[in-house]
Amino acid sequence: MMSGSRSARSILAVQQFDRPFLEQLFARADEMRVIVAAGGSNRLSGRIMATLFFEPSTRTRLSFESAMIRLGGQVLSAEYARETSSAAKGETIEDTARIVESYADVIVIRHPEAGSAARAASVIDIPVINAGDGPHEHPTQALLDLYTIRSELGRIDDLRIALVGDLKYGRAARSLALILTQCRGIELTFVSPPNVRMGNDVTAALAAAGVRFREESDLSRVLPEVDVVYQTRIQHERFTSEEEYEAARGLYVIDAASLRLMHPNAILMHPLPRVDEIAPEVDLDPRAAYFRQAKNGVYIRMALLDMLLG
Amino acid sequence: MMSGSRSARSILAVQQFDRPFLEQLFARADEMRVIVAAGGSNRLSGRIMATLFFEPSTRTRLSFESAMIRLGGQVLSAEYARETSSAAKGETIEDTARIVESYADVIVIRHPEAGSAARAASVIDIPVINAGDGPHEHPTQALLDLYTIRSELGRIDDLRIALVGDLKYGRAARSLALILTQCRGIELTFVSPPNVRMGNDVTAALAAAGVRFREESDLSRVLPEVDVVYQTRIQHERFTSEEEYEAARGLYVIDAASLRLMHPNAILMHPLPRVDEIAPEVDLDPRAAYFRQAKNGVYIRMALLDMLLG
Amino acid sequence: MMSGSRSARSILAVQQFDRPFLEQLFARADEMRVIVAAGGSNRLSGRIMATLFFEPSTRTRLSFESAMIRLGGQVLSAEYARETSSAAKGETIEDTARIVESYADVIVIRHPEAGSAARAASVIDIPVINAGDGPHEHPTQALLDLYTIRSELGRIDDLRIALVGDLKYGRAARSLALILTQCRGIELTFVSPPNVRMGNDVTAALAAAGVRFREESDLSRVLPEVDVVYQTRIQHERFTSEEEYEAARGLYVIDAASLRLMHPNAILMHPLPRVDEIAPEVDLDPRAAYFRQAKNGVYIRMALLDMLLG
Repeated sequence: MMSGSRSARSILAVQQFDRPFLEQLFARADEMRVIVAAGGSNRLSGRIMATLFFEPSTRTRLSFESAMIRLGGQVLSAEYARETSSAAKGETIEDTARIVESYADVIVIRHPEAGSAARAASVIDIPVINAGDGPHEHPTQALLDLYTIRSELGRIDDLRIALVGDLKYGRAARSLALILTQCRGIELTFVSPPNVRMGNDVTAALAAAGVRFREESDLSRVLPEVDVVYQTRIQHERFTSEEEYEAARGLYVIDAASLRLMHPNAILMHPLPRVDEIAPEVDLDPRAAYFRQAKNGVYIRMALLDMLLG
Repeated sequence: MMSGSRSARSILAVQQFDRPFLEQLFARADEMRVIVAAGGSNRLSGRIMATLFFEPSTRTRLSFESAMIRLGGQVLSAEYARETSSAAKGETIEDTARIVESYADVIVIRHPEAGSAARAASVIDIPVINAGDGPHEHPTQALLDLYTIRSELGRIDDLRIALVGDLKYGRAARSLALILTQCRGIELTFVSPPNVRMGNDVTAALAAAGVRFREESDLSRVLPEVDVVYQTRIQHERFTSEEEYEAARGLYVIDAASLRLMHPNAILMHPLPRVDEIAPEVDLDPRAAYFRQAKNGVYIRMALLDMLLG
Repeated sequence: MMSGSRSARSILAVQQFDRPFLEQLFARADEMRVIVAAGGSNRLSGRIMATLFFEPSTRTRLSFESAMIRLGGQVLSAEYARETSSAAKGETIEDTARIVESYADVIVIRHPEAGSAARAASVIDIPVINAGDGPHEHPTQALLDLYTIRSELGRIDDLRIALVGDLKYGRAARSLALILTQCRGIELTFVSPPNVRMGNDVTAALAAAGVRFREESDLSRVLPEVDVVYQTRIQHERFTSEEEYEAARGLYVIDAASLRLMHPNAILMHPLPRVDEIAPEVDLDPRAAYFRQAKNGVYIRMALLDMLLG
């Protein structure tokens, strides 16, 4: 199921997941939900996970670390790996990986450069999990998103899904679109400001896989027709000019009025953090699934660690 | 005993502590001292504490983490939560708390804004411990200070206590004064540079509780008359002008001469870190209680975690 | 075996190691290799190691933490101790040590000032391990280097060793030279750019111990004659002028041609990180021992922690 990795078990890109893997992983995540409710497990006792974050992301790091600890494992943690590690002295990611291989049983890497996790995986024998390599991939986010859809709606096929917001720089929306190529009967609607439309690489992959998709500029027309609204943040840090950013933000906001348009059984997702693209008044609606989505991230990462190390 | 918190068990402000709680906590802290001497315990095995420090404080963070580990629990740690987390992207403390709730069983928050820990606690179901919210509150410091007085002098009533130094910006002195409203027969003396006098909010609370207090400018007259000298640092970072800072520092220093004035059974406390307001020559005097005070912080935090999670 | 430390068991400087200690430590490290292969141990269960890094070094910190965790111990970690701790408020290293003594059973200190670890050790009762005090000492690096020579070549006596690169600022090369005074039949060759020659303090110690040494500018003449080539990085951050740095770097590079000159049973070591002073093509040669050397660091640190705390 893996490619470009010396270990047969690294998690590097959404493209490596096939349907049997997804089914197996989600069943394992269901088990993890039970394990957490029961107070955790010791099945990864004695195993060590190193989190090397060359780009800070406290949320993603703590989600992985919570997952490892809940399975009885231990954690080595480096959030400022770029400034503090040998990378600042000019070391390659390959050398860093070779050394940390001596310290741990699995490495979780967040790095600003596309392909960095795969480069690390290519030279070592322990599994690598890509926790985001720049604007490129964030495969565990796609897994937890699809798992959330399954948990909330009971299926991952025959779904109408709207991806809303920054679809150009938004790694989560891009990865979700790509993982949906493993599902049947998907209808995607892209709702984005014109300067941050979904990239051609993704739409080409969708077309090749036979996934139906369209673009729509009027969110109010889309909301009544979909099972999933996947809202994303307009990421200030991904824009090169302030004008481009200001033109993009605030165009599509989900608020109480939006909820009235949504189907009663639909769900609202968001990879978080949010700023103002979902109004706080929405939080109390049962269709607001984004905090449950964050919680699912722990179950999915537990399932992955258990499959890689168990 | 709690207020402003969705969980009945959060530790947010000194005002929430009543006398029965203090008695129970201190008895529990005595047990913790025994447990540490015996090599720790596993009673919080499987439980996870997240430390979210939006303002760095290695000492306070490590004190909490040592407490959790000594009870067999595990730790998720974020010291640069402001720069590295979603807070930098505009996320509210409420959203951060809702997400970290999925990762941990208790959250310890240090944050520069007053009220931030209470806001976090108001939206989640797991306990929150306020580890300092700006100049506002630092309730566990007050607890460990009062516990130190009890450990050193055998009582928390009928005490003459001098609070010395920066009483305006010094969170520790303010919190200690407030917690002393739970004690009987307290006589407080404030000795501070004129520009950093004890705030009216604290003196009003003392007056309302019937605690006797006075101000005194001559430290040498105060030293012979008190059971506890609580020295504090003039905090450079709390002053807006260099002139104000220079006028305040160096006015009240405890040295060997001060020790000769102090009662043989009195104690000298300090929330630490110190700079030059206690001379190093004082350290060897048995009345210098400040390093024992720091050690008591671990016992008090163990007792709190044990009460919240055990 | 120790000096300048209140604890009889601190690890502060290469000079404190005698031959019996080295023999005992290396035998213990051999045991640790077996323990790691068997999945770790619980022999330090309940013990806490604090890593206080006032100068960031993710690699060294994670090596110590992995060692502690593999023995069943727990870790308190502070990588930005300078900025975030009380040190930023003017606290002395002695005060910091006294407080962290309440939190942990052993303290690992990295600090930019020479002598800082010894100062910390002088005031507390738990062991201190010096993980680098500025350009001064890095004793555990010397231990893992000598252990690597023993593991690779089967002996620590009767060796011809070339130290190459920055011998003036390179702490690792300096420490290795000093620890070799405990060995018999050593012949050292120094190959360095003229502006970063080995310091007189080290050569004086070698002379006093009867270790033979010489300087040589032509690396190609040295390579065929030695058992160990110890290459080091020209450390940009140690140079005060760009001219001095540019003159030093690139002068001595190990590449495929160098390998052809080396003895078939010789080994190539490097304290890592490397930049371009060893070409990547060298990595696949079995004589390239530097990644095994990094791995030995975990075994040596496990052995030290086990001796100090077990």
